[in-house]
Amino acid sequence: MTRQSLAGQLSRCSINTATLGHRQPLETIIEQVASSGFGWIAPWRRELEGRDPLKVARHIRDAGLRVSSYCRSTYIPAHDARTFAANLDDNRRAIEQAAQLEAQCFVMVVGGLPEGSRDLPGAREQVREGLASLLEHARQVGVPLALEPLHPMYAADRSCLSTLSQALDLCERLEPGESRYLGVAVDAYHCWWDPLLQQQIARAGEQRRLLGLHVCDWLVPTHDLLLDRGMMGDGVIDLTGLRHAMEDAGYCGPVEVEIFSRDNWWQRDPMDVLRTCAERLQNNC
Amino acid sequence: MTRQSLAGQLSRCSINTATLGHRQPLETIIEQVASSGFGWIAPWRRELEGRDPLKVARHIRDAGLRVSSYCRSTYIPAHDARTFAANLDDNRRAIEQAAQLEAQCFVMVVGGLPEGSRDLPGAREQVREGLASLLEHARQVGVPLALEPLHPMYAADRSCLSTLSQALDLCERLEPGESRYLGVAVDAYHCWWDPLLQQQIARAGEQRRLLGLHVCDWLVPTHDLLLDRGMMGDGVIDLTGLRHAMEDAGYCGPVEVEIFSRDNWWQRDPMDVLRTCAERLQNNC
Repeated sequence: MTRQSLAGQLSRCSINTATLGHRQPLETIIEQVASSGFGWIAPWRRELEGRDPLKVARHIRDAGLRVSSYCRSTYIPAHDARTFAANLDDNRRAIEQAAQLEAQCFVMVVGGLPEGSRDLPGAREQVREGLASLLEHARQVGVPLALEPLHPMYAADRSCLSTLSQALDLCERLEPGESRYLGVAVDAYHCWWDPLLQQQIARAGEQRRLLGLHVCDWLVPTHDLLLDRGMMGDGVIDLTGLRHAMEDAGYCGPVEVEIFSRDNWWQRDPMDVLRTCAERLQNNC
Repeated sequence: MTRQSLAGQLSRCSINTATLGHRQPLETIIEQVASSGFGWIAPWRRELEGRDPLKVARHIRDAGLRVSSYCRSTYIPAHDARTFAANLDDNRRAIEQAAQLEAQCFVMVVGGLPEGSRDLPGAREQVREGLASLLEHARQVGVPLALEPLHPMYAADRSCLSTLSQALDLCERLEPGESRYLGVAVDAYHCWWDPLLQQQIARAGEQRRLLGLHVCDWLVPTHDLLLDRGMMGDGVIDLTGLRHAMEDAGYCGPVEVEIFSRDNWWQRDPMDVLRTCAERLQNNC
């Protein structure tokens, strides 16, 4: 396979709106992302609050964009059955919105331990049970679910799903054979350290479960567990190697930038951030 | 197997001196740890600087203590061959000190990426090559090397060895069959999130590679990537489950407390910290 850079291919690139710090209304962000040359956008649920998803979908389409992913699930594990059921209901509503937005996938950040719990296997079992139910709904409305394993430093409070191999084990259990509605989103920040990364990307590719590629960078030092992600090229992740591994495994979907950066990028002018994303995607990914 | 708590078994417990914040001379710490009822101590190399290891060993012995582990290796990966060789030399000297201290093992924190590098597989290859050489030396002086996989959040700057399965793969490659001089230290903080934890502890046990068990706790929220570890019982790790898994796999060595806590435990009176460790080991591990 000839390996191309992303130079001149911004139409393949997506901006996850978190990258801009959730400081503006979605309508403004859509215009900024489109006018910066990107082909895709990944909005968050909070940005659709009080809006008609079909209207937002039309605005995105009219701006020449498509929706790479819709962010993100309500955490699944709960203390009690009623909260567990409410979490699933909330996710079903979001999955419907994802369908209305014609999103390529709905991103599942599955949740960690219920408060006060130390039972990680129990939380994982709740995730399995919840996903089995949500997968039915996703099939009905026609939106694939992308399990996003998060970095192990979030195992307690955000995701008891920590590695790509663990996510794929779960996919195979819930939807054996080739994927139709259950796959994975590979986020460089969460997965770059994994000694099994290349092997598991190949495995996901064979099953057609590669639903997304998210990029940013790991800074050294990292000052905050959540909000100190780096711009591509400013850290230590071999992002080009990761993209090539994804493409070798058959992935040809969007490359989505998702940067949480409270003290740096979220302080800057959104158009400057988008210009930098465009430049780095083309030169450092 | 009857499962016992650690109540009344402080003679099986060890204090890693980092827990006390490196604020006092080693001689004082030895006396404090011994008078608090513990059976073991794990000193750091910095505490032996300017001292005769044989004298320190005698002091520790005379206080009724043994050395559970000696902390820790110089990072292996380097930019250039000269620095790589110097790193190995430094480790050889430390391994000799570990022998003089009659330590149960020398703790290997292998290092991350050389500065400016994004080549994680390359760093791992340097680690493999370096360990092959150090293992020879460890055999000669009679001290087992305990590979300590660190939490993936340290993959860039402290350890490109991130999981127990990765560490065991390396052990099997460098020293096939049953272990004599190469094994693993299982640290709750680094490994608790791993979906393969129980399985890999069992695997390590079959090969007799379980050389150490380190405990502390994962706090929610965690405010600092390095220096915000919790006292056992204050976080979310199922420490009793972990100890049982280790014992089911044949581990009957010391349980070592290692807490880096700049803003909390390192601010407290060392004797109070030791009392709390004793209480929590007996009730929360």
